[in-house]
Amino acid sequence: MKPPNRIHHINFLVRDLDAAIRLYEDSMGLAPFVEIDHAVRGSRIARSKIGETWFVLICPYDDTSVPGRHLKEHGEGFFLLSLGVDDLDEHLRQLEEAERGDIRQGILDWTVADAGMHFGASLQFTDERSD
Amino acid sequence: MKPPNRIHHINFLVRDLDAAIRLYEDSMGLAPFVEIDHAVRGSRIARSKIGETWFVLICPYDDTSVPGRHLKEHGEGFFLLSLGVDDLDEHLRQLEEAERGDIRQGILDWTVADAGMHFGASLQFTDERSD
Repeated sequence: MKPPNRIHHINFLVRDLDAAIRLYEDSMGLAPFVEIDHAVRGSRIARSKIGETWFVLICPYDDTSVPGRHLKEHGEGFFLLSLGVDDLDEHLRQLEEAERGDIRQGILDWTVADAGMHFGASLQFTDERSD
Repeated sequence: MKPPNRIHHINFLVRDLDAAIRLYEDSMGLAPFVEIDHAVRGSRIARSKIGETWFVLICPYDDTSVPGRHLKEHGEGFFLLSLGVDDLDEHLRQLEEAERGDIRQGILDWTVADAGMHFGASLQFTDERSD
């Protein structure tokens, strides 16, 4: 099996998106964030690229959404690690034992498949499709 | 300030290193892990590279060490995100408000400086030095 090619994105839940953006830009030196409304997940999102990886802040406004429920139960912090693969269908076909969620549309052109929570970390796979 | 150049490493705490390695190699398709004893942090460590990022599993055997205490208090899962910078001294000089730990030796040739916990995520900066 061809290993994942990069960490595609890493998501953190925050309660105050503006404050988090200020912290990561001003105090950590990250490149300027771009904000996106991701209605299907009931969240405002901001992302900044670090090398080949998107650093993503998720601020749920719908507390019945998946991120909203996670924030309520676990508080702010790490939410999900998504591994980039060349071909999501092919990668999922080759996995034998992992939990495998349906392929679904992520933010913008990201196509994702959830792979369950293992050792305390939610994992996911992502590819980017132009179609 | 020049933004961090990559996510240098991301660390997860686990209780059973062998089981975690098997999961991530066999079910997630990560490249083979290399195991390291990191006595100064009281932990066995295994790392596998995903693109430009080290995916690091930390399994503490000393429960008074920093990772050991974190595992006892918070359980398995996300522990730390370390951002790669070209020059750690220069990057720290330019940060104005972040908490700034002392520069210390990480695993092998990694030189690190802890930058505190913000919005639920422990952050750190890393560079790699040959001297």
